[in-house]
Amino acid sequence: MSYEDLDPLFHPRSIALVGITTTNPEHWTRTFLDSLLEFKFKGQIYLVNPKGGEIKGLKVYPSLKDIPGTVDYVIGLVPAPLAPQLVKESATKGAKAIHFCTAGFSETGEEERINLEKELTRLAQEEGIRIIGPNCMGLYCPKSNFSFAPDFPKESGTVGYISQSGGNSIALVKQAKWRGVRFSKVISYGNACDLNESDFLEYLTDDPETKIIAVYIEGVKDGKRFRQVLERAAKEKPVVLLKGGITEGGTRAVAGHTGALAGSEVIWDSLCRQLGVIRVYSLGEIIDVLVTLLFLPHLKGGNVALVGLGGGASVLITDECERRGLKVPPLPQELKERIQRLIPEAGNIFRNPVDYSQTAMEAEKLARVIEVLSQWEEIDFLIGFLRPGQAPGIRRTQFPQIMEALLEASKAASKPIAIIIEPDISPGGAEGTVSFIQKFVSAGLPVYHSFASAANAISLSLRYNKLRR
Amino acid sequence: MSYEDLDPLFHPRSIALVGITTTNPEHWTRTFLDSLLEFKFKGQIYLVNPKGGEIKGLKVYPSLKDIPGTVDYVIGLVPAPLAPQLVKESATKGAKAIHFCTAGFSETGEEERINLEKELTRLAQEEGIRIIGPNCMGLYCPKSNFSFAPDFPKESGTVGYISQSGGNSIALVKQAKWRGVRFSKVISYGNACDLNESDFLEYLTDDPETKIIAVYIEGVKDGKRFRQVLERAAKEKPVVLLKGGITEGGTRAVAGHTGALAGSEVIWDSLCRQLGVIRVYSLGEIIDVLVTLLFLPHLKGGNVALVGLGGGASVLITDECERRGLKVPPLPQELKERIQRLIPEAGNIFRNPVDYSQTAMEAEKLARVIEVLSQWEEIDFLIGFLRPGQAPGIRRTQFPQIMEALLEASKAASKPIAIIIEPDISPGGAEGTVSFIQKFVSAGLPVYHSFASAANAISLSLRYNKLRR
Repeated sequence: MSYEDLDPLFHPRSIALVGITTTNPEHWTRTFLDSLLEFKFKGQIYLVNPKGGEIKGLKVYPSLKDIPGTVDYVIGLVPAPLAPQLVKESATKGAKAIHFCTAGFSETGEEERINLEKELTRLAQEEGIRIIGPNCMGLYCPKSNFSFAPDFPKESGTVGYISQSGGNSIALVKQAKWRGVRFSKVISYGNACDLNESDFLEYLTDDPETKIIAVYIEGVKDGKRFRQVLERAAKEKPVVLLKGGITEGGTRAVAGHTGALAGSEVIWDSLCRQLGVIRVYSLGEIIDVLVTLLFLPHLKGGNVALVGLGGGASVLITDECERRGLKVPPLPQELKERIQRLIPEAGNIFRNPVDYSQTAMEAEKLARVIEVLSQWEEIDFLIGFLRPGQAPGIRRTQFPQIMEALLEASKAASKPIAIIIEPDISPGGAEGTVSFIQKFVSAGLPVYHSFASAANAISLSLRYNKLRR
Repeated sequence: MSYEDLDPLFHPRSIALVGITTTNPEHWTRTFLDSLLEFKFKGQIYLVNPKGGEIKGLKVYPSLKDIPGTVDYVIGLVPAPLAPQLVKESATKGAKAIHFCTAGFSETGEEERINLEKELTRLAQEEGIRIIGPNCMGLYCPKSNFSFAPDFPKESGTVGYISQSGGNSIALVKQAKWRGVRFSKVISYGNACDLNESDFLEYLTDDPETKIIAVYIEGVKDGKRFRQVLERAAKEKPVVLLKGGITEGGTRAVAGHTGALAGSEVIWDSLCRQLGVIRVYSLGEIIDVLVTLLFLPHLKGGNVALVGLGGGASVLITDECERRGLKVPPLPQELKERIQRLIPEAGNIFRNPVDYSQTAMEAEKLARVIEVLSQWEEIDFLIGFLRPGQAPGIRRTQFPQIMEALLEASKAASKPIAIIIEPDISPGGAEGTVSFIQKFVSAGLPVYHSFASAANAISLSLRYNKLRR
């Protein structure tokens, strides 16, 4: 399947939602309509339900064939046994593809349902229509105003994401959004009875809008082809991969979820090593790596100057960095003396890390310190770190000003700078820090939520950069 | 130093804050007064500053000797060079101990300051007074209404915590508070020029109110003694230990922070293994282990039944559990059939994990499912898991009801149950989930923030339990 064949699926002129509930606005089938409306989808939206009627001013057609003219793309929300009939009808209406959100196929492990899915595949080939799914959320392409979640970002970005799981596609996009990550295309592809991981990975490799590829995968249909496709993808773009179902129990969970065959840790580990794929182990880790690739793209080395609040925090962040292969070199005497001329030494610590606790609210002075640290030749980048609400003698009410000072001062960095702000997971404290984190994100800065996650993602990205050179 | 010698330090009848600012209410020296007032300290509070005057209705004495009668405990907030004089004056007033919050001693690496600290130690011995610090936050003992942070919990608990770092003492207590952890005593002891880690560890070992010991340590004064003390502590109580300054850069950071000598990874690793100490690598991990020891105290095995929302989440949590040695066994057919009779199968997955997405808001039905899972003989405990705001087709507005349903249903568990709720780190979403997490905590449930952290802490605690039997 070539890029030219697949690309139109992301730009349909008309979409029919077949099997949408007419009665219950909270029902999951409504998500697709809500998303298209929220995104102001520019093409035709057709609703189909035998009961007919109207939803939000849109006519509900009793069946697909009652729709006047052609339909580009069908979203199948009908019960599983009705799926084969819908494939035939969709072909008749000229649809290029049908996405089945419907579950209840091979993932049930029941013979009858496995055969039902096989029947779908056979019919699709016979009728010349492509199937996405079943048992998935389908496509998100912000440029086409096409989404499966109303609260996904409306702006387009450069990350292409393939997720075998619908939940893991939603979880990742929603979290990554608050870290400044934007997507070119997201594909939730479920059981992959027709179009599969290799087709979509190949598509993203060729897609000019996609600069970075993220993959959540549970199983592979054709190992040999997947290896070839992954090899080419990893040669052309950074690929971050999370393999779900790597343990014995995880493999069983995968079978029940998308009916896929999982494969062993050893195989996936050596595959990723050989091909230069960035292997990660959680959705959070995917996001941390994406943030690093997007906002610290040209890191050449792992020598870091750390500047933040607290002596104990300084010790812990240094350990987290060096344990993962980054280096926190000692501050040269000459720079130490320059910093001593800028801010008072009492209560601060002028090493690397620089603990500036006693100057935490003075943006101007902190900016000068960051300027000095940026001029340190041995250093590749800086990290500014804060644990809001947790520093001795600093009140929670002072933290907005402290965060503001760091935000302002970070602009004085002439080398790349990353920010770590530990969210304050407390009632009355969470909203404040989380909202403030948005100011850093809006300023285009890479923001991380913990010392360990930042050190890990930066170290992974750096290893990737070195491999590529 | 015996338990009887040290215990009175935690129950002073009078406390003098020497060097408190009279002019700037935002100054860090005010924290100690604010804390004692907020905690309604029952003894006498004396304030000392040469400027005299009054703060919050309390008289400010020009010097310690102007205070009528004796003073049990002195908190030294004076500049470092004035510290020796304060030791002498405190002894004259009959004080048993002086806590120096003041920094600027051996941690600066300057000879003059190192000698100043030595002078403190010598004077303390000469005058028969004990020193806590310098360069630390001192003591927190809620039973004595004695605290160094106004927003620490007022209720007493069973965790004793020794932290060489003031910041790491505050960060841990504040975060742990929202997870239901309460403390018997917390000791921030800094440079440890007189009383040191071994003294306090011995004290907590003998303290009847302390059932679990947590330690953040940067360096050890006397390795042989520390080993002996740690060995006895670990024999009598669970000990969770975080060693700060384990890498090359971390060791340098430690030197600048508390002036301690750090020691290598190999030494600390083998020490903890040999003595059965639970070794961890971050403050968050300490809290996760404390939560497990407190709220899942009698776990005998690692066989777990998982019940939560989302197929992709089910796969990931299973991998996280099994990767750390827990087991997620397949659901027996008989139990599967019983669950099928309770809730509909469409859109749910009846394996282990049980994905109950389609029944997420029905507390009563979910309670029956949890009852059935509790009766599964092979299983040692259950985990309920939710990723608020990130499940397909479920709206953010529905999540309070979904969390409420899980909270209600968890009461039907006749085996231990842990809860994982991923905080929604998004503006407008954070406060809601964080506040709701408090309902689970208030119900006495162990709550974790990620699949990985729960699996890790439960696995560490289980290994400890097995070792102890």
